Amino acid sequence: MKNYKIIIQYDGTRRNGWQKQGNTQNTIQRILENALSEILGETITVNGAGRTDLGVHAKGQTGNFKTKSALPKEEILIKLSDTLPNDIAVTEITEADDRFHARLNAKEKRYVYRVWNSPVVNVFERKYSCRIKEPLDVEKMRAAASLLVGTHDFRGYSSLGKRFKKSTVRTITSLDIKVNGNEIDFCFSGDGFLYNMVRIITGTLIEVGEGKRSPESVEIPLESLNRADAGVLMPPHGLCLEEVLY
Amino acid sequence: MKNYKIIIQYDGTRRNGWQKQGNTQNTIQRILENALSEILGETITVNGAGRTDLGVHAKGQTGNFKTKSALPKEEILIKLSDTLPNDIAVTEITEADDRFHARLNAKEKRYVYRVWNSPVVNVFERKYSCRIKEPLDVEKMRAAASLLVGTHDFRGYSSLGKRFKKSTVRTITSLDIKVNGNEIDFCFSGDGFLYNMVRIITGTLIEVGEGKRSPESVEIPLESLNRADAGVLMPPHGLCLEEVLY
Repeated sequence: MKNYKIIIQYDGTRRNGWQKQGNTQNTIQRILENALSEILGETITVNGAGRTDLGVHAKGQTGNFKTKSALPKEEILIKLSDTLPNDIAVTEITEADDRFHARLNAKEKRYVYRVWNSPVVNVFERKYSCRIKEPLDVEKMRAAASLLVGTHDFRGYSSLGKRFKKSTVRTITSLDIKVNGNEIDFCFSGDGFLYNMVRIITGTLIEVGEGKRSPESVEIPLESLNRADAGVLMPPHGLCLEEVLY
Repeated sequence: MKNYKIIIQYDGTRRNGWQKQGNTQNTIQRILENALSEILGETITVNGAGRTDLGVHAKGQTGNFKTKSALPKEEILIKLSDTLPNDIAVTEITEADDRFHARLNAKEKRYVYRVWNSPVVNVFERKYSCRIKEPLDVEKMRAAASLLVGTHDFRGYSSLGKRFKKSTVRTITSLDIKVNGNEIDFCFSGDGFLYNMVRIITGTLIEVGEGKRSPESVEIPLESLNRADAGVLMPPHGLCLEEVLY
């Protein structure tokens, strides 16, 4: 039995998110498992590091699967490339320790939320960034972002509702706002993110950048733990899971 | 009467090329003219510098149009952004000399043909580059490319068939092959390009890179003027009109 670690890239536009659920065939996990099962001749289960939502993209989703097959890993990679639809790709495959689990062993995840800040559309980035027409105050957003770095209870910054059985304390190790022309990238690194957390934090920072709230106000949800004190949920297509570190 | 110069960006994937023709509503020119006519309240005709084919993209297509409207150009730009479908954008508008004509006055055009040279798909570039699985010999392709730079009769490198009423002599001022990771960009600059010329030259250079023909063999169609001596026509989606110089 071999345990393989894989890096997965996908354009989430036409897919119903990572995780298989009920009868939906249109999730990345299901499509990938079907392809691997066909290639390896046995039923394959893939563990994914991050359960990205409907419409969210990934450049560095990481997964693992176990197989009895002796097919060389280079062959698996080529066959996956020939089998998967062209909006999903496995870009790397390496043999991992038998105990390696892509989700349970993840130490840090990196997400980027991309904003195209211009009244004029960028047609080539339209599916991978969210357009904000009015100019954003980047320095104010940076001041606000710095208040969110560290270990906090982020329940107020999630769409969990009453569904929090486990701890909602997470550590954001860095939250950098990078500007490249009209593109503003909100770069998150942390030990894990609650449901919708990256998209709600970005929405809150954008409200700061628009002058709708003060930079200091982003601390309120950390105290109140109340979703209503945070900003809007940004649409999924600006979000990308960039990398998972172990 | 004002004469405006505009820069146009489009994702050609779902469109039938630049030029309006017959009853086809799905060309960039037609869609742009309809939007401008609606905004300016009069029938507008747009001259485009390059007649890009079905499926070809543009970052720097250039056009001009005349209007009696006194609407400020900044307003026209914003209204275009609100009116055009999201795969077409006008990114710049400037007032031009009354005699300026986007096609007739173009001095140089720059096209890039993008190749993704890897057995593994790049899902984010799949609509904007053509994938070649086997590794290409870049040095051989560069040697071949250098033989095409200069002023030649490129009839053998076009799909004109018998339709050449005018001169088929063109000048390629540079043809650089740039490598960035797995991406190979074929960067063309010239005073003009015949029908399908960039895609056929790229196809011929790729055959050199695959070892199917010698670098020197790319000179044969320049002498024979015979399309059959050149290589394959590459698919449109790797091609992008980057810039037009005046």
